[in-house]
Amino acid sequence: MARTPDTMRLGAFLMATGHHVAAWRHPDAVADAGANLAHVTSIVRLAEAAKFDMVFVADSDGAWFGTDPQTVGRSHGNIGFEPLTLWSAMAAVTERIGFAATVSTAYNEPWHVARKFASLDLISGGRAAWNVVTSGNPNAAQNFGLDAAPDHAARYRRATEFLAVVLGLWNTWDDDAFLRDKESGRFFAPDKLHVLNHVGEFYRVRGPLTVPRSPQGHPVVVQAGSSEAGKELAARTAEVVFTAQLRLSDAQEFYRDVKGRMARYGRHPDTLKIMPGIFPVVGATQAEAEAKYQALQNLIHPAVGLAMLSGMAGGLDLSGFPLDGPVPQDVPVTEANKSRQRLLLDLAAREDLTIRQLYLRIAGARGHWTVVGTPTSIADEMEAWFRGGGADGFNVMPPVLPTGLEDFVNLVLPELRRRGLFRTEYEGRTLRENLGLPFPAKISVPEAQVA
Amino acid sequence: MARTPDTMRLGAFLMATGHHVAAWRHPDAVADAGANLAHVTSIVRLAEAAKFDMVFVADSDGAWFGTDPQTVGRSHGNIGFEPLTLWSAMAAVTERIGFAATVSTAYNEPWHVARKFASLDLISGGRAAWNVVTSGNPNAAQNFGLDAAPDHAARYRRATEFLAVVLGLWNTWDDDAFLRDKESGRFFAPDKLHVLNHVGEFYRVRGPLTVPRSPQGHPVVVQAGSSEAGKELAARTAEVVFTAQLRLSDAQEFYRDVKGRMARYGRHPDTLKIMPGIFPVVGATQAEAEAKYQALQNLIHPAVGLAMLSGMAGGLDLSGFPLDGPVPQDVPVTEANKSRQRLLLDLAAREDLTIRQLYLRIAGARGHWTVVGTPTSIADEMEAWFRGGGADGFNVMPPVLPTGLEDFVNLVLPELRRRGLFRTEYEGRTLRENLGLPFPAKISVPEAQVA
Repeated sequence: MARTPDTMRLGAFLMATGHHVAAWRHPDAVADAGANLAHVTSIVRLAEAAKFDMVFVADSDGAWFGTDPQTVGRSHGNIGFEPLTLWSAMAAVTERIGFAATVSTAYNEPWHVARKFASLDLISGGRAAWNVVTSGNPNAAQNFGLDAAPDHAARYRRATEFLAVVLGLWNTWDDDAFLRDKESGRFFAPDKLHVLNHVGEFYRVRGPLTVPRSPQGHPVVVQAGSSEAGKELAARTAEVVFTAQLRLSDAQEFYRDVKGRMARYGRHPDTLKIMPGIFPVVGATQAEAEAKYQALQNLIHPAVGLAMLSGMAGGLDLSGFPLDGPVPQDVPVTEANKSRQRLLLDLAAREDLTIRQLYLRIAGARGHWTVVGTPTSIADEMEAWFRGGGADGFNVMPPVLPTGLEDFVNLVLPELRRRGLFRTEYEGRTLRENLGLPFPAKISVPEAQVA
Repeated sequence: MARTPDTMRLGAFLMATGHHVAAWRHPDAVADAGANLAHVTSIVRLAEAAKFDMVFVADSDGAWFGTDPQTVGRSHGNIGFEPLTLWSAMAAVTERIGFAATVSTAYNEPWHVARKFASLDLISGGRAAWNVVTSGNPNAAQNFGLDAAPDHAARYRRATEFLAVVLGLWNTWDDDAFLRDKESGRFFAPDKLHVLNHVGEFYRVRGPLTVPRSPQGHPVVVQAGSSEAGKELAARTAEVVFTAQLRLSDAQEFYRDVKGRMARYGRHPDTLKIMPGIFPVVGATQAEAEAKYQALQNLIHPAVGLAMLSGMAGGLDLSGFPLDGPVPQDVPVTEANKSRQRLLLDLAAREDLTIRQLYLRIAGARGHWTVVGTPTSIADEMEAWFRGGGADGFNVMPPVLPTGLEDFVNLVLPELRRRGLFRTEYEGRTLRENLGLPFPAKISVPEAQVA
């Protein structure tokens, strides 16, 4: 499979206090991180100084914590800033790093999403990216008049149309549409305005969008689902794929699969960057790294771990089974987050895990690839994935902030740079330039030209 | 009518190139202002240095310009940044000034609005305000699957419920809900989390909101409609009212009317600040001010002026009548922006205006109070309104940016300060403190407490 033989793309996937479920209890953590702008600013500046392509945030339109008396108030959950407002603030105090925000297609309108990302893209001078997700979280559904999330297939049908509308709105204006000619009184050229007039199964959206195109054309489209429908949507539209892969062989298979689907949409494989998550626990020695990891694991309350397992896998319910017994394989797979549920059940079967062992295993990286080691061994693993056709780069998930990111920046990045695997300076001004993605040609969309 | 005998509240109502419809063509204007973050930053910093309570932006979820061949491309319209992303960026580079963003209740979800404003409020350290509007713009309706805006009464019924849901979500957390106790593992106190469980005519929203309360409790609620339904909603919920009043006697009547309605909701009149718009054209002499104004008027293309008249008044159609003939009084009043249509027809009748004279009259300030004069005469007028019970302050609408705001700051503000009518230093850290509004008590909303 063809791949640009260049350097890795790296995202810094930020979560308020860090990715480990008990991160907020760690002595290094800033416990009010979700409401502390100075903290977020320092983390983003650290990532920019280290030349990360982008910072990345997950999101949900509902609480990640339940109201079960056993666990309520015991975890940090997703309490804190909203992504688009936060990244807009951070764009104003940075110059080169990109900003990827997760926004769901489930309970939003394409107009709002197209407009806010276009605005962030303009505010940042072409550094915005939209991570498209479809939302399996039932707590989100209940904030929008539903009892549960729609089924997986319906969510992806909606997402596919949603994305087409957003891309269409982003193509409202030609790059040279705005004349701003004070003398003649022509603010824009009428033939460079394209009114979308979309009519589809879920949406009817006329346009035009009221935000001009940014220096990178339009925001980078990121996608995070890894189900069959998710892979197809990615091959069709995504420019970056964020994925959970636990082994190189699986990562290679996923990489070949997604890139192999692109030809039927007339796309070159290099125009999509695949970036698995990596949860790195870095120590000067292997023993030090393992001790760091164990210290975090020891902070997990059992009720929190079990609830997390269920919450991560769209309601997968293991509460009726003994904690120290095997993970049952014949539980019903629910409609939410199918691919994540299968991945977890497969992991438990392969390694013969008890329920407790499974939640401890995933609590840290929430189903992502956990690497506990020295700078050299972690660089070895990343290099093997990168050179082995498993990844174009990685979304780095620091266990605790700020120290987890500091460790990666101060210890692992120098090793990657020594091997020529990561940049020492930004190549471009826009996110698209830094990721090595092409400037988007105007996409052909149904439109009514203005006379 | 009781009013705190203190100083004026002042907002700087910013529009990309300025409020005059032809502002972008003026030599002083920054023609790409709608896409120029450095320009917006300098304007906001100027307003903050001058100690304005807040900056304010209007908004619509659809284009303000039509696609009629006569006018398309001839006006700036609302092309540019989206308010919530823009103010988030500006909050990161300022410290004391407040940020009021207009967001409509028509085509949004209460969850998104509650969450994004709460996040902006946290990002800014308690300086956010939401200007609630109901959207009569048909171009907006067509971006959300409708052909036209719902009728006025339905829009206000929806807005009333929408506001109740947003306030309910903003009351999810007690101010002291977050313990963040690393030792015990209690992140928040379960009895200080309040799940909304709203079920109403338009919305079913469970909550909880995932954003903690800010230092000002929750964002300030601003309201801009002046119709009967608008006044009632303002008396019930608003903390600031932005209104278009052309004469002191009308302003006094409006002031008495709205404040008089508050008692039935158990509210003290001082907890609502009424701030009419003022469009000041400042000159060292009266003749200089008038010449400035005329120079702007001369830049208006007739087709633009006429389209503007129609657009401002929710589709009021005067295109079948001679431009230099009288404004007909018997045209049908449409459902959109009822109060604005009546105001314009009354103005034309009172002053016996032709259609051309009417559009020239409103083109500058779009139906707001236009004052063309010297620093002394403008301060005289503002003082008369403030001391005469017509206003608690003003929303200042600079004709052209940056010079229109610079003139007001450099020439009018010193005169207001000399008279003790405006602050020389911010009184508080939050917008609420500066406006002299009380910290909001937790509002009693239907809720299900967590066990």
